Amino acid sequence: MIYVTRKERFNAAHKLWRPDWTKAMNEEVYGKCANENWHGHNYDLFVTVKGEIDQETGYVLDLKLLSRLINSEVITHLDHKNINLDVPFMKGMIASTENLVVAIWKILSPTISATFECELHCVKLYETENNFAEYYGE
Amino acid sequence: MIYVTRKERFNAAHKLWRPDWTKAMNEEVYGKCANENWHGHNYDLFVTVKGEIDQETGYVLDLKLLSRLINSEVITHLDHKNINLDVPFMKGMIASTENLVVAIWKILSPTISATFECELHCVKLYETENNFAEYYGE
Amino acid sequence: MIYVTRKERFNAAHKLWRPDWTKAMNEEVYGKCANENWHGHNYDLFVTVKGEIDQETGYVLDLKLLSRLINSEVITHLDHKNINLDVPFMKGMIASTENLVVAIWKILSPTISATFECELHCVKLYETENNFAEYYGE
Amino acid sequence: MIYVTRKERFNAAHKLWRPDWTKAMNEEVYGKCANENWHGHNYDLFVTVKGEIDQETGYVLDLKLLSRLINSEVITHLDHKNINLDVPFMKGMIASTENLVVAIWKILSPTISATFECELHCVKLYETENNFAEYYGE
Amino acid sequence: MIYVTRKERFNAAHKLWRPDWTKAMNEEVYGKCANENWHGHNYDLFVTVKGEIDQETGYVLDLKLLSRLINSEVITHLDHKNINLDVPFMKGMIASTENLVVAIWKILSPTISATFECELHCVKLYETENNFAEYYGE
Amino acid sequence: MIYVTRKERFNAAHKLWRPDWTKAMNEEVYGKCANENWHGHNYDLFVTVKGEIDQETGYVLDLKLLSRLINSEVITHLDHKNINLDVPFMKGMIASTENLVVAIWKILSPTISATFECELHCVKLYETENNFAEYYGE
Repeated sequence: MIYVTRKERFNAAHKLWRPDWTKAMNEEVYGKCANENWHGHNYDLFVTVKGEIDQETGYVLDLKLLSRLINSEVITHLDHKNINLDVPFMKGMIASTENLVVAIWKILSPTISATFECELHCVKLYETENNFAEYYGE
Repeated sequence: MIYVTRKERFNAAHKLWRPDWTKAMNEEVYGKCANENWHGHNYDLFVTVKGEIDQETGYVLDLKLLSRLINSEVITHLDHKNINLDVPFMKGMIASTENLVVAIWKILSPTISATFECELHCVKLYETENNFAEYYGE
Repeated sequence: MIYVTRKERFNAAHKLWRPDWTKAMNEEVYGKCANENWHGHNYDLFVTVKGEIDQETGYVLDLKLLSRLINSEVITHLDHKNINLDVPFMKGMIASTENLVVAIWKILSPTISATFECELHCVKLYETENNFAEYYGE
Repeated sequence: MIYVTRKERFNAAHKLWRPDWTKAMNEEVYGKCANENWHGHNYDLFVTVKGEIDQETGYVLDLKLLSRLINSEVITHLDHKNINLDVPFMKGMIASTENLVVAIWKILSPTISATFECELHCVKLYETENNFAEYYGE
Repeated sequence: MIYVTRKERFNAAHKLWRPDWTKAMNEEVYGKCANENWHGHNYDLFVTVKGEIDQETGYVLDLKLLSRLINSEVITHLDHKNINLDVPFMKGMIASTENLVVAIWKILSPTISATFECELHCVKLYETENNFAEYYGE
Repeated sequence: MIYVTRKERFNAAHKLWRPDWTKAMNEEVYGKCANENWHGHNYDLFVTVKGEIDQETGYVLDLKLLSRLINSEVITHLDHKNINLDVPFMKGMIASTENLVVAIWKILSPTISATFECELHCVKLYETENNFAEYYGE
């Protein structure tokens, strides 16, 4: 079993905000991340799959194809977007890094299994160089 | 003459957008950076000052003090903010990296000269790891 | 189960040295790391916790609060300090990266469990870009 | 159980190419990585071992010695070499990152177990900042 | 005058080798960089232009357009190529970083001046994290 | 004129401290950098030389030789040392980054001019990722 990882990037705006809370309550819980007018990040996304080496190609999978799939299913929906307003798979959810890694897992896991001879192992997302979240599907 | 640099960071939302242009015109000129609902970045700011070494302290200046000044004059206005909506010194300006480095220069240059025995040499701002702008005051 | 990580930094002096060994013996075992007059590093510390997402906040935990706890319990004791001389929780121990990750685990694990709805998963410490140690508590 | 990692680097040429396939077939499968005249990379290699802390030294193992072993057994065969043509342990294999991590594991695992009081845990290899593979021996 | 920089990357094989020298002579001068079978690098290219801010757009120039120009004029000729064998503008030249920055300057300088309201300021090329060259056109 | 840079590293202890000042005075001026028992850093040193390309070799100079010279003249005196106590060329000087870049310049400038067909252009030293100093010899 080999683990292979592809890094992608997206730049997005968001705020941490519950619409059912007052502004004061949002600011108490989320601090400056609750700025009503949004802030944003350069997100770094690491997608790790696991599988055996295809003896014919020497690949677990072709990372160019994985990159295309991540871009068409995830990055185009997030890059240069507002996570709270523009992203179908984040509608109604708090735009936290934790919720993002789970949402990205739910999109990529079935499509990776269906497309390649391997399975999704981990979704890791850096919001800043100091803060990141990982999800392994369980 | 020694050049001393301090790196600071801020996370902000923005869009490249002229209010006097149509949406179509903004998208033609600025592409995905014109997303009406904003996007954002982790900005890295490098402030370089030049001066002679103070023989008493071995410093050109105390970088802790420079850091405090950059934070109070610049970072607090930009961090976790919307550059188009929230930042007094960017009001009425297009929120480009180029305009940001000039605006930051105009704030820092007089206050650095007035506070320390040295002068501002360069303001350098990374919007992403691939794109950055520098201004030397002229 | 989501894994969330916070990066912190500290700058410290140390030497690898057993007081019950001669200088020659220390130099034979530890090489240049045994320089009697100390050397030092910019350490990078990664603290990973695991837990479920709080459906109310979208957080596993508030990383600002984790950062404060790491700073008050660990970083203030190590930053701009001598690991062999100044750090209560390293007294009588060899100032190796391995001993540091275990000592930091022992401090953070109970206080994280007591403070947050999650538990410590990993303490990872970079001494240089080329050398680092990880501890998972067992 | 502590995990300790050493990073090493090598610069090498390679192509992804099966000699039993036509040029057209190689280009169809491997794209630009099949350039007949080779291309190359700055590879970053991370070797992680696991073991208990030696109470006498505070080390799991001396990373200087691990570095020497990685250099003599692996790096000298790969650095400033052509992976397809020059590297004995890659002869007859496709020069993919996946095959490299397995080949490096097979070299390092027995010699680390024989030399140190610890065992190899992971071989991780970055081909670029965006693509890397990991192998844990099973 | 503002300086704006775009970073691009290419992965290439090369060797430092004079065909009019013997193998022994090449190895004496270039060391392991003279490996007959090539080695390679992940090159990082920084292209800096200087100009005034266009008051209409807030840009010195549109970095997406600069990126496209660098890719069509430079990167496509170098990426996943052999610098000694495949690159028209390096034919007959020693494949050193120094010669590369001058060759890239000669390509980009006239086309940037002809395409944008600004001029090329610097070409900077990293061969490794430890070695890089810069050229300012004179 | 081409500018060529070599990066080297050293790990050292220091304190910012004037022996002719009281402890209280040192702490007032230098803050936590005045910890009597030292602290330390992983320093990154960038040495830039300028010269013309030798048409015979394609080099401004052989960076392996520059690296050896920097190591023998500078790094061996600083690496795994105490800058205040162990380093001949820093005796009697405050161990600031500013004083270090000037001292390193004074060592390297004449020996580079005497050894190579080029001259020293800049000495740049990072104390941390946030703080660095540069010296151009005047």
